[in-house]
Amino acid sequence: MQLTRYTDYSLRVLIYLAVHHERLATITEISEAYGISRNHLVKVVHELGMLGFIKTQRGKQGGLRLAHAAEQINVGKVVRQVEKNLAIVNCSEPICPIMPACDLRAMLFEARDAFFDVLDRHSLADLVRNRRAKLGQLLISGA
Amino acid sequence: MQLTRYTDYSLRVLIYLAVHHERLATITEISEAYGISRNHLVKVVHELGMLGFIKTQRGKQGGLRLAHAAEQINVGKVVRQVEKNLAIVNCSEPICPIMPACDLRAMLFEARDAFFDVLDRHSLADLVRNRRAKLGQLLISGA
Repeated sequence: MQLTRYTDYSLRVLIYLAVHHERLATITEISEAYGISRNHLVKVVHELGMLGFIKTQRGKQGGLRLAHAAEQINVGKVVRQVEKNLAIVNCSEPICPIMPACDLRAMLFEARDAFFDVLDRHSLADLVRNRRAKLGQLLISGA
Repeated sequence: MQLTRYTDYSLRVLIYLAVHHERLATITEISEAYGISRNHLVKVVHELGMLGFIKTQRGKQGGLRLAHAAEQINVGKVVRQVEKNLAIVNCSEPICPIMPACDLRAMLFEARDAFFDVLDRHSLADLVRNRRAKLGQLLISGA
């Protein structure tokens, strides 16, 4: 039971931008700080932009920043939008014959909702609050 | 965010055995009822046996049955034991540099616990209660 790498990297990008909120950041520096592929991040950053979580400024002095204050970026909302498959189990490929009478599906959806209820109670700011200096150090030393 | 196919199939086997609790079932009939590979189920059934959820009787008249009443088989316990990776995100391969100061991990663990709290409140019996006749029909027609 894991979130996709894609969601994981999306959250890491947002944490990076929340730590360095006072300036624009680049995909290259985020990639180097976390030691993850720049190619992966290009796609992640593009989608975070499309979803309205970050803003990109083009040009030589360009870079990325959060589109809103970290307090206004809800973790549950990010994960719901970035994680494509929220079905918990795949009942349709191949189609499961007991679907019309299956209570497992409803039980798993209830459990998933409880999972998101926790994330919905937190903003991106909760992930960096009181930790900004330490996170900033760790992200530099990762470069 | 999905449980593995392996966990999904484990739950399907247990539901099948709960529906047909009055007799022994075979891997072949379960495989045919759900339209899933017998080879996959052999492994699933073996592990469910090792974990003490089902019992196997060898021989020509042999087959499978639940090791306990469905009321005593907790869904949360099954998923925890069968689903190998409960980490939600992989912080260690490659190692994530912010781990020592990361609050995301703790937040995701809290969300995962909320997910399992829901499953822990249910037994296998809750998944077939009042549905046994209908499930039995669907599992035959799937053959």
